[in-house]
Amino acid sequence: MRKIILFLFIFHIIHLPAQESIWWKTPTTSPEIYDNHMVTFRLVAPRAKEVLLVGEFLPPSYVVKDGITTELTGTASLRKGGDGVWTYTTPRPLEPGYYNYNFVVDGLTITDPSNIHTSRDVVKISSVFFIEGGWSDYYRDQDVPHGTLSHVWYHCDKTDRDRRLAVYTPAGYGEYGLRYPVLYLLHGMGGDEDSWATLGRAVQILDNLIAQGKAKPMIVVMTNGNMDQQAAPGHGPEGFIKPDLELTPAYDGVFEESFPSIVRFIDKAYHTVPRKQWRAIAGLSMGGFHAMQISRAYPDFFDYVGLFSAAVGREQGDIPLYQNPMEKLRTQFSKKPALYWIAIGKEDFLYDANAEYVQLLETNRFRYEYFETGGGHTWNNWRFYLTEFLRKLF
Amino acid sequence: MRKIILFLFIFHIIHLPAQESIWWKTPTTSPEIYDNHMVTFRLVAPRAKEVLLVGEFLPPSYVVKDGITTELTGTASLRKGGDGVWTYTTPRPLEPGYYNYNFVVDGLTITDPSNIHTSRDVVKISSVFFIEGGWSDYYRDQDVPHGTLSHVWYHCDKTDRDRRLAVYTPAGYGEYGLRYPVLYLLHGMGGDEDSWATLGRAVQILDNLIAQGKAKPMIVVMTNGNMDQQAAPGHGPEGFIKPDLELTPAYDGVFEESFPSIVRFIDKAYHTVPRKQWRAIAGLSMGGFHAMQISRAYPDFFDYVGLFSAAVGREQGDIPLYQNPMEKLRTQFSKKPALYWIAIGKEDFLYDANAEYVQLLETNRFRYEYFETGGGHTWNNWRFYLTEFLRKLF
Repeated sequence: MRKIILFLFIFHIIHLPAQESIWWKTPTTSPEIYDNHMVTFRLVAPRAKEVLLVGEFLPPSYVVKDGITTELTGTASLRKGGDGVWTYTTPRPLEPGYYNYNFVVDGLTITDPSNIHTSRDVVKISSVFFIEGGWSDYYRDQDVPHGTLSHVWYHCDKTDRDRRLAVYTPAGYGEYGLRYPVLYLLHGMGGDEDSWATLGRAVQILDNLIAQGKAKPMIVVMTNGNMDQQAAPGHGPEGFIKPDLELTPAYDGVFEESFPSIVRFIDKAYHTVPRKQWRAIAGLSMGGFHAMQISRAYPDFFDYVGLFSAAVGREQGDIPLYQNPMEKLRTQFSKKPALYWIAIGKEDFLYDANAEYVQLLETNRFRYEYFETGGGHTWNNWRFYLTEFLRKLF
Repeated sequence: MRKIILFLFIFHIIHLPAQESIWWKTPTTSPEIYDNHMVTFRLVAPRAKEVLLVGEFLPPSYVVKDGITTELTGTASLRKGGDGVWTYTTPRPLEPGYYNYNFVVDGLTITDPSNIHTSRDVVKISSVFFIEGGWSDYYRDQDVPHGTLSHVWYHCDKTDRDRRLAVYTPAGYGEYGLRYPVLYLLHGMGGDEDSWATLGRAVQILDNLIAQGKAKPMIVVMTNGNMDQQAAPGHGPEGFIKPDLELTPAYDGVFEESFPSIVRFIDKAYHTVPRKQWRAIAGLSMGGFHAMQISRAYPDFFDYVGLFSAAVGREQGDIPLYQNPMEKLRTQFSKKPALYWIAIGKEDFLYDANAEYVQLLETNRFRYEYFETGGGHTWNNWRFYLTEFLRKLF
């Protein structure tokens, strides 16, 4: 018992009778980012036996099993000081970037208790930090005019339920009586309407590109493509659920068939120009599949299409919307889309599927743009693809 | 090295070469809430020696030091199973409520790695869950018409900087050409424009009360009262800062003096009725102090005033806005505010200061309402106060 009380004294630094227990200070300073872009990570854990740092900015390791080499996320060992504080300093400066990491304390993966900034990817929560410079400056909040991010509900006719959207409107929206083009931006499996704004840094990318005159002011509508959810986990009547990829229906056509009611809602509720030339659709992974199917099924809706690491060729079931794909594709391209943009990383597990799709477009002389990068099926790539794609719109 | 690789195999369940490392599944199921409202907490930590659960729903303990009794947040020990999974089940059902908790693993306080739902209070991040029923049903998302929550930037004339607001507009806003009353809702020390929507569950409370006809449809503007921030940590050009109560200026009059530019912005950007009878202001703790000062300094702005656990009597420095308080108060009350509502918990460390303020109003025969509850300086009380206050507005 003595131990427990002692512990509580240390960690609940200010504890007034029957008040909320707040930490007014984090246990230590971590991460500490130096001017030269080296970084020190710290964890106060006097009783731990081993503390590891796991992060994609560390050199990866490799393991061979049954002849297959698998790359493992880089790890580094923290060293324990006499004060019970574990530390690790990067041996050299980190490249500019938006990074995430976790600590592993005696085998238990946790976020950094001294870093209040975290990001959730499906069910994995990581601590995050920025190294400024380069592309990462597009992903950081800068002192530029800021757009508005709204969480808005629309009525989905297909499911007869209210569902949630994240909608970006650019700085100045509503002030000058202007109408704006609209980009519909779709997430991947395990994601939701919040993914592009959180993991994807879409709001910052838009604010920065628009401020620099590199993208047109536009409305961006971020949808929820999981038809078993009305909203992102924790934001709808389903309550504090967690995403379950095995239970969530995908590639069954229902989201695609429901899409026109989203477009109708947006054209009614926002200052848009309800015309194909002023509409774009893009998505990553499952959302790339959705963007491909939706733009093909409704060939008069979208003049700009972006497929980022798209999960092409995943059609399931006997869905009318998926039938006669070549006929639909021919109709879509006969109408000469302003942009059909395919982006993929060389190490993406969907690389071959995308290569095959590109070959199909090539064979049929359908006009598209192809953007190949390094890296794989990662948010690093999707942030980069969004930044490139936005410059090409409208 | 073998140990590390083994670990990574276990925790990165699906790890494709050079793909993002995602957990598709959490390590276990926790918390598990049974139909009878008992709850099991679980943590996978085979190498841990001791795992505690800390939560306000557990019986508190007490410690006496220098003759002063201090209440400590309740703790319980988890028991280790043969599979390395630690568990604790509440001995009896929990009362309906919105609860937060942490695990303490060998002295290290962490969130529950199997629960993706967390909440940040200043720098403390806790895992959260609901036990439905009673008041907590106001705080949960229900299947009712939902308002919109927007993160909007306005220009602050006093500091000549753009600053961020969270603005709630009720379901149907903008559809019928209606104009709405406005509540300005202010946070406490260490909080920001996001606190009422996250910790305070203000969006759910508003949606539910409005749907039940217990509150009028209204616009609610949640401000950032820390004048060294343009936005909540991680949402402004300051970057991934953490709140520091020692460095953040407070009780210096600057926020209060800057307030008219917020009201002007809202009256311009939203469908409001720009009149005193259609405006309310309320705040908790430091925000209660702000609401008291602002409503007193601008007696023609707000007809409804709510002070929740207000930090009365904290004026610092030689600030014009704070001077001649009695004269200002007399002017304010001579204009007969529709509601001047003071709420405080019996165990709040600001109880005596509020009692003194109530006595001052009483002595001067100023008309107010006083709402005394159990409990202390907690979000449990502030959510409850907001729910009560909203019913009295407009």
